[in-house]
Amino acid sequence: SPVDLGVGYGLSAALTLGAALGAAALAGRPMLEGARLAHAIEVRLGTGLGDVAAEYYGGGIEMRVRPGAPGVGLVDRIPHPRDLVAVAVDLGRYPTDRMLAELRDRLAAAGDRYMEELMREPTYERFASLSREFSREVGFLGGDLEGRIGACARYADTYYAKKRVLLFLTYRDEAEALAECLRGVGLAPRGFALSEAGAKIFTDRRR
Amino acid sequence: SPVDLGVGYGLSAALTLGAALGAAALAGRPMLEGARLAHAIEVRLGTGLGDVAAEYYGGGIEMRVRPGAPGVGLVDRIPHPRDLVAVAVDLGRYPTDRMLAELRDRLAAAGDRYMEELMREPTYERFASLSREFSREVGFLGGDLEGRIGACARYADTYYAKKRVLLFLTYRDEAEALAECLRGVGLAPRGFALSEAGAKIFTDRRR
Repeated sequence: SPVDLGVGYGLSAALTLGAALGAAALAGRPMLEGARLAHAIEVRLGTGLGDVAAEYYGGGIEMRVRPGAPGVGLVDRIPHPRDLVAVAVDLGRYPTDRMLAELRDRLAAAGDRYMEELMREPTYERFASLSREFSREVGFLGGDLEGRIGACARYADTYYAKKRVLLFLTYRDEAEALAECLRGVGLAPRGFALSEAGAKIFTDRRR
Repeated sequence: SPVDLGVGYGLSAALTLGAALGAAALAGRPMLEGARLAHAIEVRLGTGLGDVAAEYYGGGIEMRVRPGAPGVGLVDRIPHPRDLVAVAVDLGRYPTDRMLAELRDRLAAAGDRYMEELMREPTYERFASLSREFSREVGFLGGDLEGRIGACARYADTYYAKKRVLLFLTYRDEAEALAECLRGVGLAPRGFALSEAGAKIFTDRRR
């Protein structure tokens, strides 16, 4: 995989979801049943919260409007510019179960406040500013790091940190200038296109 | 547009959804609010039933598990072979409001039965056979038409009719042979790729 577990990419949910959907497909069961099982496993193990529902139904910049398993919770989309790309830097590992043990209360309180604000005006601009403020407030984004990347910020619409992923939102034709700048301050950036689809499940060809 | 209104492509829902999502985006309102408005308009005008929710959240071969507006109803996906394509033939116009006036009871009764069967085993194989049987039972697919296209069926996994769209599911490398065969019996086929994403909503670039 191009990304690692425990950094903040939602990979544990993606692996669990992929396995559960594959098992459901082989058994001729509904995909939603597989997705719900994956959600239950993630919650039970404390490795994720709403990642499964977002990855199953999401696309682009997703917003978790109502918590819960796929079919119970509700995911919506925030419109964004068409040629947007994400440039990510891994800042280390921080397993979700440890994060929840250390930060659960702070994340829940700040999360509620920021989500309420975002849902009042769910636009790309608000997402860009609120996500940065949130990652500062809960301690994902420290002053040292912000000082270090300060000169690179002009190549992006915004940056924020989710767990140990530092993420910039920029445009296809600016991504290389941003990456160059980040390498200049000793970081290892990687570019990602945004997927507009949720989980894609394919079977073998029939004939 | 490459397809026409009132044939069975769900175009009225797509146009209504597009307009409502655009208005919501301009007003800085949630996309779900736009999608719900589009659903309400379609139901009020009798131009569609679950098309909006399917087009907003759907992808690939979708299955409407629970009726209702986006966020209320529930849409799931049926896994299908990766290189599947749809080849469609327009058989005329049949506006949904007229169809509902003429066939509502028959569609509702048969629809419940077939959906129950499909949900018991929501696989591509079951979808392929049940969709054909359903379109025969409600009268979308007549014996005359089936006789006419009989020789072309071997180029497809299945065919069925939805309102006035005759639809074949086949593979990228067989689509041209199928189209050639259909032209040979006087029909005008068109090929479509399957989208794996729901509605994609893009804004202008910010910088």
